[in-house]
Amino acid sequence: MDLKKNAVGRLVPTEINGVEAVPFQGVGKYKPEGRRFSHVITSNKDYPADGNKQVASIKEALIKAGLKDGMTISSHHHFRNGDLIMNQVFDIAKELGVKDLRWFPSASFPCHEHLIQYLEDGTISHIEGSMNGALGRYTSQGKMKKMAVLRSHGGRYQAVQDGEVQIDIAIIGAGTADPFGNANGLYGDSASGLLGFALADSEYADKVIVITDNMVPFPCVPWQIQGNNVDFTVKIDKVGEPEKIISGTTKITKSPDRLLLAEMTAKFCDVTGLIKDGFSFQTGAGGTSLAVSDYFSKIMKDKNIKARFARGGSNKYLVRMLEEGQIDYILDGQTFDLEGVRSMGENPNHTWTSPFTSYNYHSKGNFAGLVDIVILGATEVDVNFNANVVTHSDGYLLHGIGGWQNCLFSKTVILPIPLFRDRIPVVMDEVTTICGPGELIDVIVTERGIAINPLRKDLIEAAKGSDLPIKTIQELKDEAEAICGKPDKPILGEKIIAAIKWVDGTVIDCVIEVK
Amino acid sequence: MDLKKNAVGRLVPTEINGVEAVPFQGVGKYKPEGRRFSHVITSNKDYPADGNKQVASIKEALIKAGLKDGMTISSHHHFRNGDLIMNQVFDIAKELGVKDLRWFPSASFPCHEHLIQYLEDGTISHIEGSMNGALGRYTSQGKMKKMAVLRSHGGRYQAVQDGEVQIDIAIIGAGTADPFGNANGLYGDSASGLLGFALADSEYADKVIVITDNMVPFPCVPWQIQGNNVDFTVKIDKVGEPEKIISGTTKITKSPDRLLLAEMTAKFCDVTGLIKDGFSFQTGAGGTSLAVSDYFSKIMKDKNIKARFARGGSNKYLVRMLEEGQIDYILDGQTFDLEGVRSMGENPNHTWTSPFTSYNYHSKGNFAGLVDIVILGATEVDVNFNANVVTHSDGYLLHGIGGWQNCLFSKTVILPIPLFRDRIPVVMDEVTTICGPGELIDVIVTERGIAINPLRKDLIEAAKGSDLPIKTIQELKDEAEAICGKPDKPILGEKIIAAIKWVDGTVIDCVIEVK
Repeated sequence: MDLKKNAVGRLVPTEINGVEAVPFQGVGKYKPEGRRFSHVITSNKDYPADGNKQVASIKEALIKAGLKDGMTISSHHHFRNGDLIMNQVFDIAKELGVKDLRWFPSASFPCHEHLIQYLEDGTISHIEGSMNGALGRYTSQGKMKKMAVLRSHGGRYQAVQDGEVQIDIAIIGAGTADPFGNANGLYGDSASGLLGFALADSEYADKVIVITDNMVPFPCVPWQIQGNNVDFTVKIDKVGEPEKIISGTTKITKSPDRLLLAEMTAKFCDVTGLIKDGFSFQTGAGGTSLAVSDYFSKIMKDKNIKARFARGGSNKYLVRMLEEGQIDYILDGQTFDLEGVRSMGENPNHTWTSPFTSYNYHSKGNFAGLVDIVILGATEVDVNFNANVVTHSDGYLLHGIGGWQNCLFSKTVILPIPLFRDRIPVVMDEVTTICGPGELIDVIVTERGIAINPLRKDLIEAAKGSDLPIKTIQELKDEAEAICGKPDKPILGEKIIAAIKWVDGTVIDCVIEVK
Repeated sequence: MDLKKNAVGRLVPTEINGVEAVPFQGVGKYKPEGRRFSHVITSNKDYPADGNKQVASIKEALIKAGLKDGMTISSHHHFRNGDLIMNQVFDIAKELGVKDLRWFPSASFPCHEHLIQYLEDGTISHIEGSMNGALGRYTSQGKMKKMAVLRSHGGRYQAVQDGEVQIDIAIIGAGTADPFGNANGLYGDSASGLLGFALADSEYADKVIVITDNMVPFPCVPWQIQGNNVDFTVKIDKVGEPEKIISGTTKITKSPDRLLLAEMTAKFCDVTGLIKDGFSFQTGAGGTSLAVSDYFSKIMKDKNIKARFARGGSNKYLVRMLEEGQIDYILDGQTFDLEGVRSMGENPNHTWTSPFTSYNYHSKGNFAGLVDIVILGATEVDVNFNANVVTHSDGYLLHGIGGWQNCLFSKTVILPIPLFRDRIPVVMDEVTTICGPGELIDVIVTERGIAINPLRKDLIEAAKGSDLPIKTIQELKDEAEAICGKPDKPILGEKIIAAIKWVDGTVIDCVIEVK
């Protein structure tokens, strides 16, 4: 396989599963050519005159959609680990004897371990999408026949929009839908809040199937997925396990270490003047992130200021801030708890967004770039501020990129991370996998000190004279190694098991099998 | 010019302004080929990192958008006769010496009479879009250099989607917008309710300019137009004359003749069982249509039933029905009065739609087909139920098609029309211009009798035994001629001044200059 060194010094394949791939050229350097993908022109004459597209079963829908060998089947991950649809879809494919399917989920979860048998028997040729858990481990062991491709949420939209991935059949599970195909995730037993991860699929897939357990008479309002893009609708008994789709309640971390990280992060934002009237932020829904939101809320109360908007994923803490008037708007990409779902259904200022509005880099701008402060995680960070979110230091591919790469375009990117985990340093000489180039990462907050990217002279200046423990990233690395020792490199094989795409479709790194 | 007889027997051009045109082949007969138009792939790297796309003036935006000879400039008509933008746009084009522009409005109004000078001097080569008033008269007199093309709202979306019309620069006036380009028509001095007529323009135009007099900080919520599709934003003092954009209050007709028509229409729907629990309807906002809604409301109260949805244009009568629980949803394409705007801004069950959701025929179905009863107007109807909405019997092209053609796909199409106007019969042997084929028009209600299309045996059966004055369409025509005499044919020239497109992009008829 031909490899080429890219702009962050990584050797990456120039071909992925038989298709040419462009190595990463640097942030904002790659100039796309050509036109977006376009759908074949359809005509209403080929659809039911009364708009009723309902068929009796998923199997019937798949057959009518023309399921056959080699097709690309897409799905979204709003049902998270509670998804009950995709295993059924591939069971049917197996039953029909269809082979070599490419599964293109926005993410897969432990509940999809069931599909390993189909990777084994050739029903599924490979997966392009984030793999969490068993599928990631399987892939890391070099067992998947073709190369996985990991993309950010925005990168997935970009890949579909630009025709890099052409979807034959899109499967869209929905909390609520009507027979015409309008659908949303706001209501029903399997409410997931929204369905934005399926937007590109609905717009660009050749055939679109909407599956729900809550079929309502037309119109299903609001239509997060537009029925005008849908070919078939199906009602089944249960599309998801509610308690695995959405948590009853998200909780702030109780870990003293993480609370410290969150407090230091919030204090850094306060001291450096990032928290000011009309600012905006995105924190995510991990325990530490929630704690950051909560500290932000306290600081804002003290200062008597408010934020213009917060980007989701939403949770009860953000919802409380919205309802108390501390935030004008939540621009939400995925709801993380029931309070988020409730608020989105009730409050027009809790607005649903999509990877198109928020993250698509091959657009005319997106929302991520407008956010003042974004709080993100990482499995590893190196002394050049490059960061990794997909592999662990043992080399295993166990996480997806999510919106992480897209959020790096926000005005100030802060990574609160522990200096080491299980006595393995998190700050190191070189990360296992580069998911984001250091030039876009501004601040690393660890329990033992805060490193500011030298490119951010403004922040370095603003932090001067404060009692914040500002250090260089090299100092942080040295401290980590002084405590844990220099970490061993994982023992890797030869085979490239996954390509990591940058937001513009170029290859920023790849992942090697673990021996 | 090559003419060919189409499926409704009209001679139509096979070429329009140098581009091949397909004659109408019958309802549901034309099979489109190829793929939809697709936008060049853009990259965020070429847009401001902070999302602020605001420039100082319309002139600057037009220059930055690369305005040059021969371009297609589009606009929407949500500001109706109160539009203050498009005259300025073409003043600037004139000032810059740009020639041969094609103006592609969703409709033009009397306020655009100012542009005749630019049709004269070659700044504008021709207009493709509905022309109301002076521009229609100018065109009818054969003075426009190229052929006008009239399309329905859905046909306009279809033409843009399919690449039949490629827009170079879209001008989108908005009641409210943010510097990123998110925009809506819900708020601000020039609120128009919604901006759906500009949706196709925003999605497919090469460059998109949003112009507002109410620029708010990001995010402008909701975004009826998505900033991700926008290149430049401009704030000016005033985009429209509010009182000409939207009426303070729509009013039910006081004409006894029209009230009679409305009452007969409602009674017909009642007697034939079309009004039943969970039904749907679309009536429009003319004086007669409003009266029909009001009669519907009374009938529904008497029967203690409700409608699942009403399609707009919305007005205070529909809003009252929504608020009193007589309708579950209003699916609205354009608001006609301030009550409509208020309700749409407040009530999530008053949902905004677009020509894409409601009317696009080259889709996978649209909303129009799901409506049970639609009430429409016509300037003329012939004995084959073919109808005309664009020309008067004197041959002048004075109206646009609007959503009229698209609504013909609703389940029952009823035209309440006077039997004659100014002593000229409305029901006749042959209409001046065929805009809709008779097979889609079910019932003609006149003050002197109701004609049911023989294709609708079910309605003929259902009306039997009632005291409704059911007649044949031939009888209605004979009565009209007995009273008014046989009407004179208009004196027409040779030149084809406008092509009338069907919803699938084929040519259903054309309009000849008036001598």
